[in-house]
Amino acid sequence: MASTNIANPPQNSRKRAKDLVLNLQDKICQGLEAVDRKGAFEEESWKRPEGGGGRSRVMREGNIFEQAGVNFSEVEGKELPPSIINQRPEAKGHEWYATGTSMVLHPRSPYIPTVHLNYRYFEAGPVWWFGGGADLTPYYPYLSDTRHFHRTLQQACDSINPSLHKIFKPWCDEYFFLKHRNETRGVGGIFFDYQDGSGKVYKGQNPNGEAANIAGKLGNLEMNWEEIFSLAKACGEAFLPSYIPIIEKRKDQNYGDKERQFQLYRRGRYVEFNLVWDRGTIFGLQTNGRTESILMSLPPLARWEYGFQANDGSREKLLTDLFTKPQDWFKDETLEEKCHPFHAVD
Amino acid sequence: MASTNIANPPQNSRKRAKDLVLNLQDKICQGLEAVDRKGAFEEESWKRPEGGGGRSRVMREGNIFEQAGVNFSEVEGKELPPSIINQRPEAKGHEWYATGTSMVLHPRSPYIPTVHLNYRYFEAGPVWWFGGGADLTPYYPYLSDTRHFHRTLQQACDSINPSLHKIFKPWCDEYFFLKHRNETRGVGGIFFDYQDGSGKVYKGQNPNGEAANIAGKLGNLEMNWEEIFSLAKACGEAFLPSYIPIIEKRKDQNYGDKERQFQLYRRGRYVEFNLVWDRGTIFGLQTNGRTESILMSLPPLARWEYGFQANDGSREKLLTDLFTKPQDWFKDETLEEKCHPFHAVD
Repeated sequence: MASTNIANPPQNSRKRAKDLVLNLQDKICQGLEAVDRKGAFEEESWKRPEGGGGRSRVMREGNIFEQAGVNFSEVEGKELPPSIINQRPEAKGHEWYATGTSMVLHPRSPYIPTVHLNYRYFEAGPVWWFGGGADLTPYYPYLSDTRHFHRTLQQACDSINPSLHKIFKPWCDEYFFLKHRNETRGVGGIFFDYQDGSGKVYKGQNPNGEAANIAGKLGNLEMNWEEIFSLAKACGEAFLPSYIPIIEKRKDQNYGDKERQFQLYRRGRYVEFNLVWDRGTIFGLQTNGRTESILMSLPPLARWEYGFQANDGSREKLLTDLFTKPQDWFKDETLEEKCHPFHAVD
Repeated sequence: MASTNIANPPQNSRKRAKDLVLNLQDKICQGLEAVDRKGAFEEESWKRPEGGGGRSRVMREGNIFEQAGVNFSEVEGKELPPSIINQRPEAKGHEWYATGTSMVLHPRSPYIPTVHLNYRYFEAGPVWWFGGGADLTPYYPYLSDTRHFHRTLQQACDSINPSLHKIFKPWCDEYFFLKHRNETRGVGGIFFDYQDGSGKVYKGQNPNGEAANIAGKLGNLEMNWEEIFSLAKACGEAFLPSYIPIIEKRKDQNYGDKERQFQLYRRGRYVEFNLVWDRGTIFGLQTNGRTESILMSLPPLARWEYGFQANDGSREKLLTDLFTKPQDWFKDETLEEKCHPFHAVD
């Protein structure tokens, strides 16, 4: 295994990773309050009986955000759950340390996408790794918004290594995949996990995912601790510039009950992904995490409707046909003509 | 293992089990339409690519029921998923057959509990088993309704063997348990699984569950195929008499937005149980089941609220303190005095 070649992390690795995600939480919350202009974050600090704790922040009934949750946590435990030990057998029998920030924003307007971000760092005995990413889930999608989000994250990845985005983009499509619906959660973004320097890619939920093959073809992607740290930092700092311009562009678009009902219906899919497939959620619930903080990702209101199908030729059908399937957002020249009839380009 | 002593099922076992659950679906739907007086079931028949199919029925926007879903399915497959093989290793490598009916009713009024029923029959190579049960999830609970529901199911169990209810009642509390909330889903009812004649009881989600210990103390509970078939039949037929009187008693009680909001919030717990812990849901999603039918159990509308806690001394707090914890509904004499201040006895 490549992971036996991993260099040791720097001596102050835990503190540096913790400061990174803590600062990220601060900056993101400031940026969100500024754009919302009404809502303010309420903060709750908590301790975990087995060790560690966190700082949960929630904004409710804001101008832009119906609910925004931004968590920070730093936790320790005796033994990682089997789901992680399977992927990192070297961690077995060792105490573990993890710190991270995670965020899900549920805007009120169906024209502003839901968005998720998470960056985390683990140490367990001889092994350490970074994981994280960000992904966008529109209800009434726009090609330009999708491209802006992807482009901003790509630039952050490129600043570390121009091969990375080629892997992390398809890995995101592969991970944020609802197998029981044969849909991606949304238009994706970037995702990486177990990054320990070996450059190894793990399969996501979608059995047809291509991330590992692509990584194989790209060849040597080894990075040291500092490079992966810088990657997490660059991607984390790219979040506000990737998302705020979408808010500014969409916030004054009017919508009616039809759009609201469709948004609530699609939020049901968000619940399904998080509770059925999301490793972070399952990890939290398995390790006796703080339930209220873990489930802060769930929407304030969601709807299910048996047998719902969007009408052919509708804006809603465009979402399921095009924007919940993996796409090459930059290079596919058919996307514009497919979006054009729905005024969904720009 | 006791299961090596299992008698073979009768020759027409599949047909008899199928007719049982099919008739149950029919009778229940008729009873629900009669009590609703407005809503009617729409039916969809479907086939499963790997073999078999089903008949899904849904009532929407009824008088009593905001949504009522009653499924029937008869399906076959090559190999059972690992979660079942773990419990029934003899089934490994064998084709399987399963038939069952499952139902979740989401009434509009917060005074009428949500209710679930499921009875199912499996064959796989040398093994067969029945499973099922019914459980009640009130929002604004009444002790008399809870007792009526339990008493009716108890009588059905007693008609087969007076020891059964002593096991199936705690097994239900143990199975319909949200570990991440330390709550039962509601006031329970009955639950049994893998009933193949050996009388063995399997642990549910709640690690403190007592069902297996109780079964051990009660001693020999072996039943033959006919007896377990009769048990499923008796319990299934007890459903309408266990539930319809609760509707009749509560349907004209007025409620306001506060009660509605609390109901929507608690429906979030129903979603959490079904997507995170329910074996039936996970089995369906793992075996490429029909997603729309499986997720028909989810409520038409649900709400999450970070950090919500019911006020001390409130009717809502009574639910979480008393009615989402295992209770001895018949013998515990303190229940009446605890419910009395909230007018929650009768």
